[in-house]
Amino acid sequence: MSRLYSQCVRTVVRLGTARLAYTSVRIRQNRFCFKLLGSGVICQFSLFNFGGTKKLDLDSSDTWMAAPITDLEHLKEHRDDMKCQVEALIMRIQAEVCQALEKEELEEGGKKFQIDRWLREQGGGGITCVLQDGTVFEKAGVNVSVVTGILPPNAVQQMRARGKKMKGESLKFFAAGVSSVVHPRNPHVPTVHFNYRYFEVEDEDGEKQWWFGGGTDLTPYYLVEADVIHFHKTLKKACDQHGKQLYPKYKKWCDDYFSVAHRGERRGVGGIFFDDVDEPSQAKCFEFVKTCADSVVSSYVPLVQKHKKDGYSYAERQWQLLRRGRYVEFNLIYDRGTKFGLYTPGARYESILMSLPLIARWEYMHAPEPGSKEAKLTEVLKKPQDWV
Amino acid sequence: MSRLYSQCVRTVVRLGTARLAYTSVRIRQNRFCFKLLGSGVICQFSLFNFGGTKKLDLDSSDTWMAAPITDLEHLKEHRDDMKCQVEALIMRIQAEVCQALEKEELEEGGKKFQIDRWLREQGGGGITCVLQDGTVFEKAGVNVSVVTGILPPNAVQQMRARGKKMKGESLKFFAAGVSSVVHPRNPHVPTVHFNYRYFEVEDEDGEKQWWFGGGTDLTPYYLVEADVIHFHKTLKKACDQHGKQLYPKYKKWCDDYFSVAHRGERRGVGGIFFDDVDEPSQAKCFEFVKTCADSVVSSYVPLVQKHKKDGYSYAERQWQLLRRGRYVEFNLIYDRGTKFGLYTPGARYESILMSLPLIARWEYMHAPEPGSKEAKLTEVLKKPQDWV
Repeated sequence: MSRLYSQCVRTVVRLGTARLAYTSVRIRQNRFCFKLLGSGVICQFSLFNFGGTKKLDLDSSDTWMAAPITDLEHLKEHRDDMKCQVEALIMRIQAEVCQALEKEELEEGGKKFQIDRWLREQGGGGITCVLQDGTVFEKAGVNVSVVTGILPPNAVQQMRARGKKMKGESLKFFAAGVSSVVHPRNPHVPTVHFNYRYFEVEDEDGEKQWWFGGGTDLTPYYLVEADVIHFHKTLKKACDQHGKQLYPKYKKWCDDYFSVAHRGERRGVGGIFFDDVDEPSQAKCFEFVKTCADSVVSSYVPLVQKHKKDGYSYAERQWQLLRRGRYVEFNLIYDRGTKFGLYTPGARYESILMSLPLIARWEYMHAPEPGSKEAKLTEVLKKPQDWV
Repeated sequence: MSRLYSQCVRTVVRLGTARLAYTSVRIRQNRFCFKLLGSGVICQFSLFNFGGTKKLDLDSSDTWMAAPITDLEHLKEHRDDMKCQVEALIMRIQAEVCQALEKEELEEGGKKFQIDRWLREQGGGGITCVLQDGTVFEKAGVNVSVVTGILPPNAVQQMRARGKKMKGESLKFFAAGVSSVVHPRNPHVPTVHFNYRYFEVEDEDGEKQWWFGGGTDLTPYYLVEADVIHFHKTLKKACDQHGKQLYPKYKKWCDDYFSVAHRGERRGVGGIFFDDVDEPSQAKCFEFVKTCADSVVSSYVPLVQKHKKDGYSYAERQWQLLRRGRYVEFNLIYDRGTKFGLYTPGARYESILMSLPLIARWEYMHAPEPGSKEAKLTEVLKKPQDWV
């Protein structure tokens, strides 16, 4: 009988995704079912487990880049707690993105991600994966962080300015997110950024607030309209599953947010961006964020595949480096996430600043030749367009 | 008699600095004196003009990089107005620094400064001098700006936080300053920054406040103690002329201000920094600032001369670029002047951002080898020292 059990378990596991991890608790439950139902219903059982209900992010835990910050057993035992659901999601997304990028990199004989798991004295920690000075990727970072503590005063101020009503000065928070910036070497491959995050704040009366934020946006160095359309279409498709109103709203928010104000330029050709999302329900918000995060690889990796072997000139490389200077300007002057990160006591600045390119350039009074490919991109950065 | 006049004038002019400019008004005054005294007192007369009283900054106007923002005639007619005195000072300092740097550059067959005179719609303007991609200087900017307008709200907030009492929300201001960052190509030549400025704010009730600010600080890539000592000694000598208490106070302020807080490092080895200086009198504050500004060339140019021909390795260049990344971090995240500039409506961002290096680099988790020259510098950046 015990041989039958283990055979059943192996079969079920094979029916799931490539590398599923079952906890001892789950295995025990399954064994109990097998006992009742016998081997004849394996097929149905597995459908019930993997088809009828949504696949759990936790099931991918043996593909994760490192052990999660919260103990895996705890994540499994509290799988109904949103904090645990989010952590499992971002661990899976991190792994899938890293693996997809690494595949592109290794095909060209390049490097692997360096994985750093770090803990924060004040609570929580993160897993930072960086692939630096590779063949395809000059610098690619995919960071997960799960942080708890007391909000720094300027963060409280910022949140109140955004309309959050929170009593007191000493507010407990939980923040978990996956954040990534990918700077390819080839100027014909765009840079991508994405970030999906969940926030909980508890005020002095013990009142809890939660919200989701996130987005994915593209920063090309040369404008290939078909690429930008593919990117936006993929994001729209993801948003549309949760409401037709979402893509237009979050597309505009993205254009507004990623603005290098002093230059009157957008950072790139946009994508989607949202914050303070807390409607219609926590479960629905989570599903929306999950769909968006799941669209990252399909929105971006085809562009890498298409252009990673393109030839480029010295002048094109210099233009890319100049544009990376603008990227640095946005991130260090305007980006709320970077500021929140750097002002949080005990912040791991290396993880926050992994978004900065390996090399950036600033030329005084640089202006692209009128009519050039560089000027064509600049025009689009000055006037955001509709792509779908 | 008229031949005698002009001869006298030429002689007087030759007794001054290399290139003195006399206005028609002054020449007329001088001629009147000559008429009364005759040619026998020329020597005494010139002593009275150039020795007995302090040389006026205005006298150097024919050496300035461009026409001042305020009409030269106005500056001369209102030479007792502090706004005009400051403008003349910063024009002279800009010219002297540019000429001293250009001399070092041209000796190596390099480039000349590009000079841009710009006006601001909302009032005032500036003269931006940039030498980019030269032989000795990778990027050197020396900027003068003379700006009037209404203070942006966040600047008002910042000033109130610093203790300024100003009624109302719509505050007229005047700001004039010279600001410079010099990034040499050779990693053995330090980067220098200086900025000397004067501020006037008029509140709703018409009450005026004024203050001076400024400083000079050094950012070496490799620590040569003798160089740092020379730099600090020169600044101390300048400060000491105005009070023995000034150098220690402003040296500490500099160490505190140029802090890349998230890294727990100083930007460089310091120098002097001060703000809100309005005691004991406007005239004395001006004289102090003038002495400091006059010490820039002698504090820094000898270090350029000493090291500009030093050999350097690829690794040393990479280290310099990494340190330049830290420079960018400070300027874009923390520097009050950069923020004030970028948030001022109609700001000329190209002039503000001329402080950024031509190239900067960010490596994830870079740490110098223990015991290396790079580690030696880093230690000093983590723990500021006394140099004189």
